[in-house]
Amino acid sequence: MTRALTGTTAHVAENPLIPVLAVVGVGLIGGSAALALRRAGQVGRVLGVGRNAQSLERARDLGIIDAAATLQQAAEQADVILLATPVGGLGGLLAQMRPHLRHDAVLTDAGSTKAEVVAAARAALGERVGQFVPGHPVAGAERSGPEAADAALYQRRTVILTPLPQNAPAAVEHVRALWQACGAHVIDMDAGAHDRVLASVSHMPHLLAAAYMGQVAAAEDAAGRLALAGSGFRDFTRIAAGSPEMWRDIFLSNRDALRVELAAVRAVLDEFEQAMARGDGPALEALLARAAQARRDWRKE
Amino acid sequence: MTRALTGTTAHVAENPLIPVLAVVGVGLIGGSAALALRRAGQVGRVLGVGRNAQSLERARDLGIIDAAATLQQAAEQADVILLATPVGGLGGLLAQMRPHLRHDAVLTDAGSTKAEVVAAARAALGERVGQFVPGHPVAGAERSGPEAADAALYQRRTVILTPLPQNAPAAVEHVRALWQACGAHVIDMDAGAHDRVLASVSHMPHLLAAAYMGQVAAAEDAAGRLALAGSGFRDFTRIAAGSPEMWRDIFLSNRDALRVELAAVRAVLDEFEQAMARGDGPALEALLARAAQARRDWRKE
Repeated sequence: MTRALTGTTAHVAENPLIPVLAVVGVGLIGGSAALALRRAGQVGRVLGVGRNAQSLERARDLGIIDAAATLQQAAEQADVILLATPVGGLGGLLAQMRPHLRHDAVLTDAGSTKAEVVAAARAALGERVGQFVPGHPVAGAERSGPEAADAALYQRRTVILTPLPQNAPAAVEHVRALWQACGAHVIDMDAGAHDRVLASVSHMPHLLAAAYMGQVAAAEDAAGRLALAGSGFRDFTRIAAGSPEMWRDIFLSNRDALRVELAAVRAVLDEFEQAMARGDGPALEALLARAAQARRDWRKE
Repeated sequence: MTRALTGTTAHVAENPLIPVLAVVGVGLIGGSAALALRRAGQVGRVLGVGRNAQSLERARDLGIIDAAATLQQAAEQADVILLATPVGGLGGLLAQMRPHLRHDAVLTDAGSTKAEVVAAARAALGERVGQFVPGHPVAGAERSGPEAADAALYQRRTVILTPLPQNAPAAVEHVRALWQACGAHVIDMDAGAHDRVLASVSHMPHLLAAAYMGQVAAAEDAAGRLALAGSGFRDFTRIAAGSPEMWRDIFLSNRDALRVELAAVRAVLDEFEQAMARGDGPALEALLARAAQARRDWRKE
């Protein structure tokens, strides 16, 4: 047992919720879940699966996982498998694990989109898709990698499950208990509704922040601009630092819903543009006041 | 002397930088400057001018000003006059003060745009425009009003001066010293360059955040969306809560530069839209990676 592991494992319950947990993708999302379950004493042994051996070693040194494992080992040994990788690769990972999966294992994911993930899981797992409970912890940060993992990441955050008709109620409750043990509030939604809402409140801000940040960076006088950027810029662009690979997959996976939202935002940009072209102060103030009121009414700071 | 005033006035230097300061518009920006100068001991008496008598009374109770004054009284008595109102009304205020201005008084402003402010000041002050040193403290917050005033607001922030050929060097240095006493770093720029850079790094984020926030608020299922909005949304939309009146004036005043930036951002949104339509992962990843790299390279947290 490493020093770091000792430090983070205060205790393990006599009958932990998850005797053996496998985390596929030990970065911010998966690593934080492992740390939170350890802190709650609700996990026995944690296996880590990933493409990058160094990163897994680092996760072990940090006390996030007990050991690195292959997909096959994880499938054979784990009671619960949490897939915390970019959504585009999920189907392939499930297909590789399927022949080795324990019949009582419960699989879940942390993907930011759900309809395409469900389709990929059906294709990969076939009649065993009932073992897969789709999930999405609505938490994240611009940081990534095992170093960014934080046992408190899910405290008071929302986790959305989009259960399948094939899921046994016990499997859904097991995944619910996992996230509750991490400190999260768990709700259930339809996968399509999830994707439409998240396109609006999560994916769209990322798209706008990234488009804007890219435009500033591409300007001839980018350095001069960035030198004068202040705290508004800082907060507005923070999300643009997020993993390009992860967000590429999200944008591809949820592109239908995201394009609908983008068209609607562009229609409002048209209103601003036209009001500025007309020099129309009252129209600008009305647009700004609607936004300011809505933001002030949203009390979640 | 009120209790609150006693609390904020630790001392006054024997020869304070500004024996009598008048602040026109005692909100976040003007109020914070007054508090910072008081804390530095660099101001004797502070007069507050404003349309709202209650707000001025509150400012006096908070120890921000010593007394309310009319524009005429401020013009007659003040060594330095700081105009901290929405930029659209600046010309009118200067014109009203002009007949009463002391010839040794120095005027400055805190407006977020400069070219139009300079034009308005020239029209209003005529041959006395040399008394007006245009300035812009690059600091702000979504809060407003005297209650939001904070003596530390300008600590380590940048203040941009856009001096006029008519300004006496001593007048410019006086305004520079004022902001330095507030803890700010002061730089000089050309007014047009200021407006183009600020259109990009300040006004454009506000426009995007407001357009987005308004679009979400106008959606039929706005409540359901907002219930699932997380920390990314929180940071991205924070600026959208800013004063609609102030931002209306900024957008009108700087609309030429802002419309140029908006067109450039929309061109990047087109690239995202087309990449999603094509299902083009590499193009999306390249756009996202450019933004992520630029944001990570901008170290200002």
